[in-house]
Amino acid sequence: MPVTLEELALGSMPPLHQPIGVFDSGVGGLTVLKALRARLPGRDFVYLGDTARVPYGRKPREMVAGFAGGIARFLIDQGAQAVVIACNTASSAALPDLAQQLEVPVWGVIEPGVEAATRATRGGRVGVIGTRGTIASGAYQRRLEVRGFAVWAQACPMFVHVVEEGLAGAPEAEVLTRHYLEERPDLDALILGCTHYPLLKDVVARVVGSGVTLVDSAEATAEVVSSALADLPGRTGRVRHFVTGDVAAYEHTAQVIGGVDGEVLHLDVAELARFEARAGVSRG
Amino acid sequence: MPVTLEELALGSMPPLHQPIGVFDSGVGGLTVLKALRARLPGRDFVYLGDTARVPYGRKPREMVAGFAGGIARFLIDQGAQAVVIACNTASSAALPDLAQQLEVPVWGVIEPGVEAATRATRGGRVGVIGTRGTIASGAYQRRLEVRGFAVWAQACPMFVHVVEEGLAGAPEAEVLTRHYLEERPDLDALILGCTHYPLLKDVVARVVGSGVTLVDSAEATAEVVSSALADLPGRTGRVRHFVTGDVAAYEHTAQVIGGVDGEVLHLDVAELARFEARAGVSRG
Repeated sequence: MPVTLEELALGSMPPLHQPIGVFDSGVGGLTVLKALRARLPGRDFVYLGDTARVPYGRKPREMVAGFAGGIARFLIDQGAQAVVIACNTASSAALPDLAQQLEVPVWGVIEPGVEAATRATRGGRVGVIGTRGTIASGAYQRRLEVRGFAVWAQACPMFVHVVEEGLAGAPEAEVLTRHYLEERPDLDALILGCTHYPLLKDVVARVVGSGVTLVDSAEATAEVVSSALADLPGRTGRVRHFVTGDVAAYEHTAQVIGGVDGEVLHLDVAELARFEARAGVSRG
Repeated sequence: MPVTLEELALGSMPPLHQPIGVFDSGVGGLTVLKALRARLPGRDFVYLGDTARVPYGRKPREMVAGFAGGIARFLIDQGAQAVVIACNTASSAALPDLAQQLEVPVWGVIEPGVEAATRATRGGRVGVIGTRGTIASGAYQRRLEVRGFAVWAQACPMFVHVVEEGLAGAPEAEVLTRHYLEERPDLDALILGCTHYPLLKDVVARVVGSGVTLVDSAEATAEVVSSALADLPGRTGRVRHFVTGDVAAYEHTAQVIGGVDGEVLHLDVAELARFEARAGVSRG
């Protein structure tokens, strides 16, 4: 049931209470949202899926940073007390600049994943898998190498599609996982460096075996954020979703991540562009 | 450079001359457009990629038929003298009803593919690969079986993504092709029953071997349409693209199909919904 922002402003919808803003290029960030809600059940959340401009992975870094800035400001305008960039590509492109510009705390998914891998590895042999954009950016590799780890990185461009097609438990997932991981060296930890990949945890675990600890960046991020932000005891958290693409398509795809809970509203990208344009303007 | 339909109506853009309308849920239909332009170099074309509502494959049949009706009427409103449904799912959902409702000729991609397979097979052992929607609809299987052929059908849901990711020549394409085709029986013809699949012709040919004739439904459709519509000698055909999703994303993805030639205009799906609503109204 799309409503316009004007209707929202007119109060036809109940306002969220001190929500936490979470965004991704699509549905992948819902894994982070789910992990956050499990830890902060009393908090409200406002989620934005930029499905009209998905995928971010192959777009120029500056463009993605601009998108992220516009979205973060929109979420703050919607009342967000903190912003979680639940997308590896946008985290890599927009942090730490965005953290310096915004008046609320902002987290990405890369640092928490790296920290969790640092705790998980015993021999310092760490692998990371992600989209082509994330792997090409070297964001994980640089942070892991300065810790003295031997790092193996592999782009898995078909994994997002396997998840979005609902095929995470199907033979395609197994065939592609074996393909992408067949040339891995001896590892003791493997970072799932894309917010879609937690849904492939079972098949990846089967292929790499129990000697490799899988690091779920959605869980790692939720842990970091929830330890910094207090829950609101006695409340039952609500979620409002905004999507820039088709609402029905979003709801359909989101089913593979357990479905959406809460209303889904369409938001025109032009609206986000207005917030992006404000990026250079003082918000004092 | 998006322009509004009002600007178009105001004549800021030169009108196309007796164009042929072609549409698909996304970029796949560009293979059909390319095959048509090779045969009708003097004709203008107006192409619509419904990228805001892609994929059609898992949407209800009636919904897809409605989309197709709205798009066909929009293309006719843009001057189209004929309409080519360059999408298997939409062809299956909207024909023959749409052919009876429209005042211009309309073709789909299924009948031409079946006809071409009928000419190609020697022993009557015909295979067809397509999206889950196309294979589940049984549209190819029914038409082939009434001709007395032994039919093998296989859904290949990851193939569209392999093509759209620009991985048609990459190891992923080979791994998935072997997976999808490994349990095939002895065939002598194989229909590429999705407009994206002509881009996988090389890898499919390598896997099935030279004893299997590949039937390219894009080529087959272009042959049927071009034999029915005259070229306009002495003219150089132009193309105008409309997309319901993001223009830059469309242009990027279209690169894997040789890129787009001609202007690309954004069209809001709400505009198409207005044409869809007219479906029930007499157009006399």
